[in-house]
Amino acid sequence: MRPSGRAPKQLREVSISRSFTKHAEGSVLIAFGDTKVLCTASVLERVPPHKKGSGEGWVTAEYGMLPRSTHTRSDREAARGKQTGRTQEIQRLIGRAMRSVFNLEILGERTIHLDCDVLQADGGTRTAAITGSYVAARDAINHLLKTGVLKQDPIIDSVAAISVGIFQGKPVLDLDYPEDSSCDTDMNVVMTGKGGMIEIQGTAEGAAFSRTELIELLDLAEQGITELSKLQTQALK
Amino acid sequence: MRPSGRAPKQLREVSISRSFTKHAEGSVLIAFGDTKVLCTASVLERVPPHKKGSGEGWVTAEYGMLPRSTHTRSDREAARGKQTGRTQEIQRLIGRAMRSVFNLEILGERTIHLDCDVLQADGGTRTAAITGSYVAARDAINHLLKTGVLKQDPIIDSVAAISVGIFQGKPVLDLDYPEDSSCDTDMNVVMTGKGGMIEIQGTAEGAAFSRTELIELLDLAEQGITELSKLQTQALK
Amino acid sequence: MRPSGRAPKQLREVSISRSFTKHAEGSVLIAFGDTKVLCTASVLERVPPHKKGSGEGWVTAEYGMLPRSTHTRSDREAARGKQTGRTQEIQRLIGRAMRSVFNLEILGERTIHLDCDVLQADGGTRTAAITGSYVAARDAINHLLKTGVLKQDPIIDSVAAISVGIFQGKPVLDLDYPEDSSCDTDMNVVMTGKGGMIEIQGTAEGAAFSRTELIELLDLAEQGITELSKLQTQALK
Amino acid sequence: MRPSGRAPKQLREVSISRSFTKHAEGSVLIAFGDTKVLCTASVLERVPPHKKGSGEGWVTAEYGMLPRSTHTRSDREAARGKQTGRTQEIQRLIGRAMRSVFNLEILGERTIHLDCDVLQADGGTRTAAITGSYVAARDAINHLLKTGVLKQDPIIDSVAAISVGIFQGKPVLDLDYPEDSSCDTDMNVVMTGKGGMIEIQGTAEGAAFSRTELIELLDLAEQGITELSKLQTQALK
Amino acid sequence: MRPSGRAPKQLREVSISRSFTKHAEGSVLIAFGDTKVLCTASVLERVPPHKKGSGEGWVTAEYGMLPRSTHTRSDREAARGKQTGRTQEIQRLIGRAMRSVFNLEILGERTIHLDCDVLQADGGTRTAAITGSYVAARDAINHLLKTGVLKQDPIIDSVAAISVGIFQGKPVLDLDYPEDSSCDTDMNVVMTGKGGMIEIQGTAEGAAFSRTELIELLDLAEQGITELSKLQTQALK
Amino acid sequence: MRPSGRAPKQLREVSISRSFTKHAEGSVLIAFGDTKVLCTASVLERVPPHKKGSGEGWVTAEYGMLPRSTHTRSDREAARGKQTGRTQEIQRLIGRAMRSVFNLEILGERTIHLDCDVLQADGGTRTAAITGSYVAARDAINHLLKTGVLKQDPIIDSVAAISVGIFQGKPVLDLDYPEDSSCDTDMNVVMTGKGGMIEIQGTAEGAAFSRTELIELLDLAEQGITELSKLQTQALK
Repeated sequence: MRPSGRAPKQLREVSISRSFTKHAEGSVLIAFGDTKVLCTASVLERVPPHKKGSGEGWVTAEYGMLPRSTHTRSDREAARGKQTGRTQEIQRLIGRAMRSVFNLEILGERTIHLDCDVLQADGGTRTAAITGSYVAARDAINHLLKTGVLKQDPIIDSVAAISVGIFQGKPVLDLDYPEDSSCDTDMNVVMTGKGGMIEIQGTAEGAAFSRTELIELLDLAEQGITELSKLQTQALK
Repeated sequence: MRPSGRAPKQLREVSISRSFTKHAEGSVLIAFGDTKVLCTASVLERVPPHKKGSGEGWVTAEYGMLPRSTHTRSDREAARGKQTGRTQEIQRLIGRAMRSVFNLEILGERTIHLDCDVLQADGGTRTAAITGSYVAARDAINHLLKTGVLKQDPIIDSVAAISVGIFQGKPVLDLDYPEDSSCDTDMNVVMTGKGGMIEIQGTAEGAAFSRTELIELLDLAEQGITELSKLQTQALK
Repeated sequence: MRPSGRAPKQLREVSISRSFTKHAEGSVLIAFGDTKVLCTASVLERVPPHKKGSGEGWVTAEYGMLPRSTHTRSDREAARGKQTGRTQEIQRLIGRAMRSVFNLEILGERTIHLDCDVLQADGGTRTAAITGSYVAARDAINHLLKTGVLKQDPIIDSVAAISVGIFQGKPVLDLDYPEDSSCDTDMNVVMTGKGGMIEIQGTAEGAAFSRTELIELLDLAEQGITELSKLQTQALK
Repeated sequence: MRPSGRAPKQLREVSISRSFTKHAEGSVLIAFGDTKVLCTASVLERVPPHKKGSGEGWVTAEYGMLPRSTHTRSDREAARGKQTGRTQEIQRLIGRAMRSVFNLEILGERTIHLDCDVLQADGGTRTAAITGSYVAARDAINHLLKTGVLKQDPIIDSVAAISVGIFQGKPVLDLDYPEDSSCDTDMNVVMTGKGGMIEIQGTAEGAAFSRTELIELLDLAEQGITELSKLQTQALK
Repeated sequence: MRPSGRAPKQLREVSISRSFTKHAEGSVLIAFGDTKVLCTASVLERVPPHKKGSGEGWVTAEYGMLPRSTHTRSDREAARGKQTGRTQEIQRLIGRAMRSVFNLEILGERTIHLDCDVLQADGGTRTAAITGSYVAARDAINHLLKTGVLKQDPIIDSVAAISVGIFQGKPVLDLDYPEDSSCDTDMNVVMTGKGGMIEIQGTAEGAAFSRTELIELLDLAEQGITELSKLQTQALK
Repeated sequence: MRPSGRAPKQLREVSISRSFTKHAEGSVLIAFGDTKVLCTASVLERVPPHKKGSGEGWVTAEYGMLPRSTHTRSDREAARGKQTGRTQEIQRLIGRAMRSVFNLEILGERTIHLDCDVLQADGGTRTAAITGSYVAARDAINHLLKTGVLKQDPIIDSVAAISVGIFQGKPVLDLDYPEDSSCDTDMNVVMTGKGGMIEIQGTAEGAAFSRTELIELLDLAEQGITELSKLQTQALK
């Protein structure tokens, strides 16, 4: 029995609100249950040094948690003067996931900068961030297509992410905080709308996991991402 | 004529939403028109070194802007590795304003830590932050009174803030971004619900200002803060 | 009765020594009683990025306290690796005050960089710094006019600053450290030689202050700044 | 055909030299072909704050590359003043891998601190670091058992890691730099000597990967780790 | 011929002003010609961690240059966020020099913290700093003896420093900036009042130097330090 | 009697292994007994800002100790976020020493960047670093001459360094850690192959030292460097 009463294969309620703030080219508030992440996509007419003069663009991401998005207050990273290893790991993951569905040549020498800020955390912030970032990026690119800055669509597929894990000996989908903090194995899976695997990160928190468990977790993740892809499509209508 | 069409003495539409996020003891989303600031109040059962063993508590604040809360994307302070001078100036101001209505002895050796994060900026973020922080702090203290942690109320008055300025030669209340970025004089005023002045910060951006103009600005500010105090009271009902 | 025995409207003894050090284009040691600040003005033939190619110059300031300028030794900011919020607040104030009397177009694409270093602190370091910086900047500009680098004077007015406060229920001028550390209200006022107000920053340290008190404090400040302007003029003869 | 001429299932030549330096309780130079990593295990009679008073110990890791361990010189992280996101990601991975085979209660309130410094890089530095760290940690614990500091062995299994990837459409084991920099999918797998999975991190660098490819990669990884476990055992004899 | 017209064995005019600022237990402005350094000695009733509980005290130093103490403005280290290697080298040298004349056991568990801030630089700032720091430390210790905090004098000898160098092929004493910036060999020598050598740091800036030149330089330095010791004694009367 | 049983004038066993790692243009593992330093020389086709457009090249060095190169583990400088004063002092010394034997004009606008990383420390790491860096730099320059990038040799002499000290009242050559940590005087001497003195840094750790002792130490150092120069020549054959 899951603490939330959900069935093992059941996602939390997911909501995707576009145009949540007004300045960004794409601005999405995504909620996976009580986890709420604001994902904005900014179009910058410049690229980082390693892309200068290449004719190609760049897609990158930054991630942060508001200090009291968590159960107890965490230090503000800006005040501490550096981002934690966890933050850097997550923002690198979001950036790789988003780049996997972009043709950087068609994007041209500009950057899509995603900012994922967690307003409220209840487990699964990185998967919500990736799923919401795709919608924000889609909106930003649509804006560039509409205004004629881009003639061709640089986005080649959609992308979404979900967590799965072994909780009390049983594979479950979309871990919330009470599950995440006491599960044995925790796995984040990133897949495209067409079903290609982009990233899989599984970690044994307690006991090691077996090949059989891994397969079960992947099945669950695939089902969850199929649902998320549909929700992304609906939200973008 | 103001760009927004408002009358000189007219505030923007103000909304104050309590319990905006679920973990913080006080959590308020305050909007001054298109300026939206999330103010959370966290109760920490510890005090900074200079208060240890004093029997007194502490009230402090931190401030940040989400990178794309602004018209063009700003650098993330956590990624740059330091807070700007502007950020530090603002969070020091919020902290002083909030301490002015607290009896730190009655609070006891604990800290009320306010976090003011700007989700969307359109001028006046610091005044919205102070006005919202009061409501969040009130909720956090009510929680401590209700749970019996505190027997006596450490809050001695309410506090709110507003900006005023000389825009195109005329004193106006509650500057929005188009006004703020082109006004001659910009003044932030912090007052208590009982009408005491807590802080006044006036700056000539272009031409110097006169004593007469200063008085007119103070009159405007006083009127605005009276209105904000009422809105705080209504929100807390 | 003031701890120093001064009358409420009495400034401390002010001395302004020009050419205190030999390398800077302007170098002034200013004393407000026991507060001693070395203000140097350096001419740099470059501007910060936001002014490049604008045809305009820039005026900026940095502020620091020698570690043992204070009653007990303070940490050296260079060793701690960052400037405090207070330091940044003060140097931003000095910069704004100095820019208010400069025509940046006439200055041309160069920077006047003011460095205000407190050798000995006894209250009022920021007001001494502004008052001394004006004299240093004046000397630096005179040097540029004399050597023909500038044909026209970019300085449009003089500028000075003073603190005022409510000490033991009474408005007093030019707070020294014993007054500053126990006063109810503390206000710093920056005005030009022609009497225009540039900046006013008033803070209730203990009880809130009233409009009447504010007016009394402004009267005192105006009188003090008139005296300081005269002393600046004498020193520059 | 692999650039090195290796068969798809062939590891590079692996060598494990113990007692490579003299001060550390465990000191291992491990080579996966031209990749050479010095792994030292230090016993510290203290634990980080979150373990103080818990009766449990801690196992942690730090990772670094010598500036010219790479084809072109990289910046020295100590001189730049911070570790890159990649460095932090890797050292967090090594720490988790090592903790997975430790009983922290039996270890008692002390820390095993692993330092993995890359002397020469040719792909697979993180997997070499984990594989070598186990041997260094084993030596450090043996030292504690021998000197009677520990009565019972806190290590519950061995641990090793290997990379696998899709190179030119074909799954290959133990990627070297030429393969790593041009492969489609790159996966790092951490397993225990008993065959339990500890961590799996797979990333599509170019095209997405399929479930079938994932299974093939896991088969390869399992075979490679079985070989590495034997080499660890031999080295420890 | 030296640029200043001095004889090869001639010191610049040296002045030592005690009680230059009022808060520090020892405060000395020392001038070696146009080089002016403010040396303050602060008594702190605490010791750094490595001396806690040892019964011994500590003597340490920090060094800084005001940004416009030099011919052209240098960056403010506090604003850059770190001290340069040169600064750290110099403050470590001053600390070692001062500790060489202290009996730390007699000092007891307290720290003498020397701050050497260069108000005006014209070569030889580190030697002036050491020579002035001794006088400031002497004053601070005298204060502790007078107030009865110390019963016994922890200072066992005096200490002073001077630079010597090969300028245009000839050994000269006490290099000023024009000499320092174009000399072939530059040597700083620290000696005690009783004639013991404490530190010698000689560097070939251009051509290598010979043993004969080294001996000549040491002779010069010894003579200079003998003169400085007398000036210290006179100043302390 | 020396702890190691060596005669006072006896160097530790010195070994110099070239091409220790494969990527760097010069890569030398040098051992002075148990002190082992990896010195790599990298050729960078760029110069620092102060040399841009000068037609001259640059030679610079960085130094680091692996955290467990020492008896007890030291903090990793990259993790602490800054290099210690000691590290900066040493890398500045290595850079000066190496530049003393380079003709920067002949080198042309490129940089020889030396990285000296201590794998195992037992006293004398800086002298080993200089002695090994020369061999690495020689190899890097030979590579540039062989590939025709350079037509003329920019190296004008060889350079080596050794420590000497007064241990238990007696001058000894090449201090190891037990001697270094308890000696009275410690001196590092850098000389060229032709016998010119480049740098001499002598420090009284306990009692002051006399001129006679200084001369004895220099004699010892000269003898040691003559031996090291021969070993460098042999290694380069």
